[in-house]
Amino acid sequence: MISHAAVYRGDRTFTLEQKEVSDPAPGQVQIQVAYCGICGTDLHIFLGHMDKRVGFERTIGHEMSGTVSALGDGVTGFEVGQKVVVRPLDHCGECPACKAGHKHICHNLKFIGIDTEGAFQELWNVPAHTLHALPEGMDLAHAALIEPLAVACHDVKRAQVKAGETVLVIGGGPIGLLVALVAREAGGHVIISEISENRLNYAQKLGFTTINPKTVDPVEQTNKLTDNKGADVVFEVSGTQPGVDLMTEAAATRGRIVMVAIHATKPAVDLFRFFWRELELFGARVYRPEDYDEAMRLLDAGVVDCSSFITDIKPLADIQEAFEALTGNPSAIKSMIKIVRD
Amino acid sequence: MISHAAVYRGDRTFTLEQKEVSDPAPGQVQIQVAYCGICGTDLHIFLGHMDKRVGFERTIGHEMSGTVSALGDGVTGFEVGQKVVVRPLDHCGECPACKAGHKHICHNLKFIGIDTEGAFQELWNVPAHTLHALPEGMDLAHAALIEPLAVACHDVKRAQVKAGETVLVIGGGPIGLLVALVAREAGGHVIISEISENRLNYAQKLGFTTINPKTVDPVEQTNKLTDNKGADVVFEVSGTQPGVDLMTEAAATRGRIVMVAIHATKPAVDLFRFFWRELELFGARVYRPEDYDEAMRLLDAGVVDCSSFITDIKPLADIQEAFEALTGNPSAIKSMIKIVRD
Repeated sequence: MISHAAVYRGDRTFTLEQKEVSDPAPGQVQIQVAYCGICGTDLHIFLGHMDKRVGFERTIGHEMSGTVSALGDGVTGFEVGQKVVVRPLDHCGECPACKAGHKHICHNLKFIGIDTEGAFQELWNVPAHTLHALPEGMDLAHAALIEPLAVACHDVKRAQVKAGETVLVIGGGPIGLLVALVAREAGGHVIISEISENRLNYAQKLGFTTINPKTVDPVEQTNKLTDNKGADVVFEVSGTQPGVDLMTEAAATRGRIVMVAIHATKPAVDLFRFFWRELELFGARVYRPEDYDEAMRLLDAGVVDCSSFITDIKPLADIQEAFEALTGNPSAIKSMIKIVRD
Repeated sequence: MISHAAVYRGDRTFTLEQKEVSDPAPGQVQIQVAYCGICGTDLHIFLGHMDKRVGFERTIGHEMSGTVSALGDGVTGFEVGQKVVVRPLDHCGECPACKAGHKHICHNLKFIGIDTEGAFQELWNVPAHTLHALPEGMDLAHAALIEPLAVACHDVKRAQVKAGETVLVIGGGPIGLLVALVAREAGGHVIISEISENRLNYAQKLGFTTINPKTVDPVEQTNKLTDNKGADVVFEVSGTQPGVDLMTEAAATRGRIVMVAIHATKPAVDLFRFFWRELELFGARVYRPEDYDEAMRLLDAGVVDCSSFITDIKPLADIQEAFEALTGNPSAIKSMIKIVRD
């Protein structure tokens, strides 16, 4: 079968190509991809930050939705035409993390769509164990938000947010906003700290209290909003030194901080404050199967206002333009590529 | 009543003085101090690092044991002659930490023996709520180890060490050794990383596996000892940048790191590793009442070999000499001052 695919060729360039796609191997499912969102990681790849890992022949993409188009031998529980999303993690089953039950952060994890072929193509063969069936009535464009929403579900679960707790989200990009929505759904009083006016406006439209550290002292403001207690839970989603400074300064005594951001360099961290206030820090990466289940439940329940969260949908033919539009100071929240042709 | 007391006068100097001691106020108990160990914090005070907080008129000391010598009005549950130790924490009851049930790390905490008068004196008035009664048969020199042992109990409780887990203790000073002993009692397989030959020898005598990062790569060695898993639990007790580097590198996936050390500056921390391996960090400071109970139980059960752990006992008259002996590269594990006169 011939499949139209976007191939990352390095130097901020996708080429549109026709690929010969094999039948799904035993244990695999072939998916006709419907939509695929553009993740921050995809943007890093586009900008050349991950060339060593990705190479110059890869079709990337993992925030997807689609329908089953063919089943490999031995696959049960799915049928052709069924709506699905893929949890894009392929673990080894042999390493200490897998043996300890942490398969989602396997030491030899292959992230499907980064380390192997991804979803910016019409037909996509993936291991059947990565599939989650969608409710029949779910909009497939909305369903492409399940992957980032599952990240947020995992983060909030790591924090064990309880009803009535104050939650500070540092960084109001797509993941920060989804974390804020899931934390609010868990009963948290959520404050978002962000410096982009565009994102602040959207966060306010969603009903969140916001802090702009460019105009007010975010520690003073958090204390003011929490009767001088500080935030019970802090999500560090900014990946910046000021964010790392804020996470310890704004946390309540015994506050739980979740490390969501990817820090490429080692920031200075106030470990004295960890000692003094008995702070707690939890790393959180990707998701477990139950986080996908929870994300589907929350999406179905309308926790995300998909129509405003998805700011633009472009056809696969315009993928180059879609990525270029995200490289400046974008106004988009979530940009999506429509893969399936009408 | 006249009480002999050591007074810190600044500039590495104690003076021995006779103080007029009042009767215990309502709610207070007067203690005839028997023994008082020298804590690392006492040494910092002696070296002038805490002059702003302590001043130049203070009798310090808090790792103590003694007997009740008088009761203030309204004090019940104790009697004259009873053996006791003091949990030297005085909280405000009003701050967000107290209100949230974390009185031991009250935002306005007075540490008795640092912020108020301490135990390097014969007669000492303290709030009755700070007292823990000792078993009648307990040796009072040994009982003066309860305070640092309670620190270790608190640290190990924060880590929730489980039987069969591998525990790496970074820094084998008195607190590191006590943490190692308590963690072993909890069922942990304990490795101690330390650079002082003297401390390494003592740790080995106590039966611990040791790593000297000056002679072997401590990460490689930890991996070798854990079948490449890394340590399930890491205690950072060194207060150094190499210790902070080791804590993230040597931890297993989802490993729990406890911040025991006081880091005066903000070290660089590998937050990417926290994300990637879903590491967890828990600050741990002083102790709660139940940690004192546990420390007494463990001391009574012989978990600490007191006769080797207490390396020297000097009379109050020799306190200056005792502190001076600890300022170089000391061979002592725990130096103690005998306050009571025979």
